Amino acid sequence: MRWALGVDLGGTAIKAALVSQEGDREEVMEVPTQAWMGRDHVLEKRLLPLIERALQRARSRGMKVEAVGVAVASPLDPWKGVVYHPPNLPGWGVFPLLPYLEERLYLPVKIDNDANLFALGEWKWGAGQGHAPLLCLTLGTGIGGGIVYHRGIIWHGAHGAGGEFGHVTIDMEGPPCNCGNRGCLEAMASATALERWVKESQERGRTTKIPPGAKAIDIARAAREGDEVALEAFQWVGKNLGVGIAALANAFDPRVIVLGGGLSKAGMLLLEPAVSEFERRALSLQRERVKVRLAHLGHLGGVIGAALLALGEGLENHDKVREEEG
Amino acid sequence: MRWALGVDLGGTAIKAALVSQEGDREEVMEVPTQAWMGRDHVLEKRLLPLIERALQRARSRGMKVEAVGVAVASPLDPWKGVVYHPPNLPGWGVFPLLPYLEERLYLPVKIDNDANLFALGEWKWGAGQGHAPLLCLTLGTGIGGGIVYHRGIIWHGAHGAGGEFGHVTIDMEGPPCNCGNRGCLEAMASATALERWVKESQERGRTTKIPPGAKAIDIARAAREGDEVALEAFQWVGKNLGVGIAALANAFDPRVIVLGGGLSKAGMLLLEPAVSEFERRALSLQRERVKVRLAHLGHLGGVIGAALLALGEGLENHDKVREEEG
Repeated sequence: MRWALGVDLGGTAIKAALVSQEGDREEVMEVPTQAWMGRDHVLEKRLLPLIERALQRARSRGMKVEAVGVAVASPLDPWKGVVYHPPNLPGWGVFPLLPYLEERLYLPVKIDNDANLFALGEWKWGAGQGHAPLLCLTLGTGIGGGIVYHRGIIWHGAHGAGGEFGHVTIDMEGPPCNCGNRGCLEAMASATALERWVKESQERGRTTKIPPGAKAIDIARAAREGDEVALEAFQWVGKNLGVGIAALANAFDPRVIVLGGGLSKAGMLLLEPAVSEFERRALSLQRERVKVRLAHLGHLGGVIGAALLALGEGLENHDKVREEEG
Repeated sequence: MRWALGVDLGGTAIKAALVSQEGDREEVMEVPTQAWMGRDHVLEKRLLPLIERALQRARSRGMKVEAVGVAVASPLDPWKGVVYHPPNLPGWGVFPLLPYLEERLYLPVKIDNDANLFALGEWKWGAGQGHAPLLCLTLGTGIGGGIVYHRGIIWHGAHGAGGEFGHVTIDMEGPPCNCGNRGCLEAMASATALERWVKESQERGRTTKIPPGAKAIDIARAAREGDEVALEAFQWVGKNLGVGIAALANAFDPRVIVLGGGLSKAGMLLLEPAVSEFERRALSLQRERVKVRLAHLGHLGGVIGAALLALGEGLENHDKVREEEG
């Protein structure tokens, strides 16, 4: 049996698991990132010890680990393995994470963006069930995205930044987005957008059971208990999401669109209005054939995708392609 | 020297040319489609005679033609070679054009959508100069699109319909689109949208030199002569186009975005506001690195792309990939 170590380096937690070529997961581990302590602390006191602990456990169980894959919540160059100013890892700047890890681990290492690897995991063992092209949206504080095309290859785009679905405009005069644009999907369909919508309703004096300063998870609970404001908030976010999904379906003609990330835990509260709006807006071929599904792999999606990358999925003659594209 | 015959079957005209592997074009021909006469007439009295005339000319000049490529203005299945209800070829319905041509020509034949092949031509010998990923928008009565990824492979999507950039929503409450959606790029950045904007300005009584019922070409002329309404119309269409280009740049992270089709002949009138809005809205990496350019190949883009397809570009282990994607 072939095994890889998958690692997911996020701003809040670092997760790891041993993943086999069959999709078995063993020794799932999680530690807080302690991102505020800065780069050296995260690397030397959190990430490396976690990796070493996982590899030790593998050794003690007689499991041979072939390689390590790391999913990073950051813009990055997957070819050189350089991360660029991860927004939730303060003080990292431009950092050559891949060379750093290769020097310290006596194993092959690969890194990629967490949303790309989430898409890879869902393609192989999740909602995609091996069907490509597959688009993935990770709905959380922000919105990320990943694209997997035929034979499980990640679409990196020209500069390693493909799949920024959070910054697809659905309303050109819409609310301002953190990126400087207006009416981006991220400004209108993220957990942050949901929370802002509820806050504004409360400020306008609407009656609701939702406590002030509520997070998406509280709003989902209130919606399940029948709270009008919470239900409307999900209708609004779901509709916006559906507009974006229809645009992406028309542009890419994928086989599957997978919705993941924390907000996707709202389940049908989000999926129902999103799919209904998608069906109202997509071209007929896409409406009939593109499947919109909730993610299956949950919070381990990035870890599993990272292990798949380490096992050789996701890339195809990588450097060669890169060179030819010049 | 290797030669192919490229053919572009549109609703108004059928064009053909002999194209060499070096990009030389010989024997450029064009006949009216006479689409209103129905499918059999177009096939037997227009398309086949044009192809046979071109092949005869090649023979008489001692040029060996390897294969025939046909660009069709229609949704189609590029694998089976079946066209589905071409909107500007009345009475065609669902028609197996590839098998039909293969039976009648003693040469290998390939067919694909005209916007895809326009993108392929621009990638190889046009504004793309061999750089991928490349996105192409064909701006005319409607808006089509094509995607070329690494090594000149066309992105067909799951069902042969990738690249429908005309139906990317930029304003979810915007004007209705022919597709049934609202605020699509096609409803806000096509020649038709430009003409509608001018018509509505005229109906509101604005003073302009533009004659009633003017087409895009007349509006461009008036704009060059300094007409205020015409200039504003191009500002509006260009801005809308820029919103769409920014969304596509963020989603795909391409190297180049190429603007073609009749409306692109307006040149800087369109490009200047489009690029300026793109730069205001795209993520910083895309803003700095994605190149937005006017097409180079003009009205022969489809013919040249079709010849490239016949010469073996655009597809990669086509049926194999298709099968694996299940």
